[in-house]
Amino acid sequence: MKILMNTKLIDRGQAKVDIEDRGYQFGDGVYEVIRVYEGEIFTMDEHLQRLERSAGEIKISLPYSLTELKDRIRELVSVNQVWDGGIYMQVTRGVSPRNHLFPGSDIPAQLVAYPIPSKRPEELQKTGVEVITAEDMRWKRCDIKSLNLLWNVMAKQEAADAGKFETIFVRDGIVTEGSSTNFYAVKDGTVYTHPSNHFILNGITRLKILEACRNAGVNTVEREIQASELDQYEEAFISSTTIEVMPIVKIDGKSYSKGKPGPVTLSIQKAFRDLLPDRKKDGVL
Amino acid sequence: MKILMNTKLIDRGQAKVDIEDRGYQFGDGVYEVIRVYEGEIFTMDEHLQRLERSAGEIKISLPYSLTELKDRIRELVSVNQVWDGGIYMQVTRGVSPRNHLFPGSDIPAQLVAYPIPSKRPEELQKTGVEVITAEDMRWKRCDIKSLNLLWNVMAKQEAADAGKFETIFVRDGIVTEGSSTNFYAVKDGTVYTHPSNHFILNGITRLKILEACRNAGVNTVEREIQASELDQYEEAFISSTTIEVMPIVKIDGKSYSKGKPGPVTLSIQKAFRDLLPDRKKDGVL
Repeated sequence: MKILMNTKLIDRGQAKVDIEDRGYQFGDGVYEVIRVYEGEIFTMDEHLQRLERSAGEIKISLPYSLTELKDRIRELVSVNQVWDGGIYMQVTRGVSPRNHLFPGSDIPAQLVAYPIPSKRPEELQKTGVEVITAEDMRWKRCDIKSLNLLWNVMAKQEAADAGKFETIFVRDGIVTEGSSTNFYAVKDGTVYTHPSNHFILNGITRLKILEACRNAGVNTVEREIQASELDQYEEAFISSTTIEVMPIVKIDGKSYSKGKPGPVTLSIQKAFRDLLPDRKKDGVL
Repeated sequence: MKILMNTKLIDRGQAKVDIEDRGYQFGDGVYEVIRVYEGEIFTMDEHLQRLERSAGEIKISLPYSLTELKDRIRELVSVNQVWDGGIYMQVTRGVSPRNHLFPGSDIPAQLVAYPIPSKRPEELQKTGVEVITAEDMRWKRCDIKSLNLLWNVMAKQEAADAGKFETIFVRDGIVTEGSSTNFYAVKDGTVYTHPSNHFILNGITRLKILEACRNAGVNTVEREIQASELDQYEEAFISSTTIEVMPIVKIDGKSYSKGKPGPVTLSIQKAFRDLLPDRKKDGVL
């Protein structure tokens, strides 16, 4: 496998970083995961624009223009013959003697990008998944897709330890999002999801789902959902680049839509797939 | 310079980590900074115990016993001839294909430790420093000394950009601590500081300062300090392993103790130094 490290494609075995890379010592960086469907890089522009935005929020200058970056990512996909998978990429503030203060402007940001396995979880998309809720202990800038992911990691592991798929965060009584997903609940045919403010990551898939809802004639409302009122909703689902639209059938042991993916969720799942490239080729629809 | 990487001492130039070290991708690890005074490692036991505690809170098993670790750190100090400086060490959850979920128990945690420069900031300790306040946007487990330091970094840089030494965090109207320091305010001869709960790091220096206060006959109270009542205090100071007891002379432009280090602060500064090893040799007292 070839890894993109700054401007160079190198062998996987050579892909090492210095111990004083600020990503390693401070989580001082941002990242993206981009899906590749049948060799086509899905929503690359949106992901790279968000990378640039995240970096800007923490005052990191991307080492390359988005145009250059797009060319390098395309080359990475091509040389590794990625057909059905994903690209992980991260940018850190560079290598400098350990100090909370930013290094000087002569220290370039460090880019790493490489292919990761990513397959549509088809069986789970049909059966739906169970989730738990937990307190949102994360910082207050969840809109930045940063490398400070420790609480996300802990929450995802907590779900797995309980035999569940995901942990949904609750901050001050409000359902925000999952540890690596956005969250949606459905009532009377309308999809509700948290507004895109500092408490959630405004997922590219989330934006595509809102588009898919419009296409499917499903009404959407971005507003806070009280955790105490979750049982008043009929359906729920989560989304991410990797899992797309994933139905929830249980939250903290309580069943939704009789323990099966709900009809509105399934219609959105289909409408989302209709937005994917070359969807006819993938044999799913 | 020699770097301790797991059990091996290696050359600085060889000190690289894999791009899929979880420290690099998730900030999934913990750290310590230990001060070395005249070749003597100060409060090593306390630091290593805290490292073990931090690791335990995020379910990382240290790769070595504290006894082994102590021997290795002593060796590191010795081989690098560290006399007046510090040791930085961090432990991450190891190298594994990127996934929020913990890797299997066969994946060992990764330890890195190496000498960093650390000098007593004597001039600033005499003149005192100015600080600013800012909202505490960090997660709710600041008691864990984790590598998720992005907001600390941003806040420290904000202070520097304003020409100040440190940013003091305020969470829900309560003064918690600085971006890399603990915070104290003095009124009527009594030292007030935030209780050691989830909202602050219980600094080893903080504990030593409480001990120094006892030795100096200064009363201490661990309780929340309202940011709105800060102007009712007469003196203030911050502490860390590196800066020891650092007087504050201005907070957000308002002077304390007439813009000079206060008498109570100075007495604690002295009482703290009295706890240091071989203090007579350092020529300061």
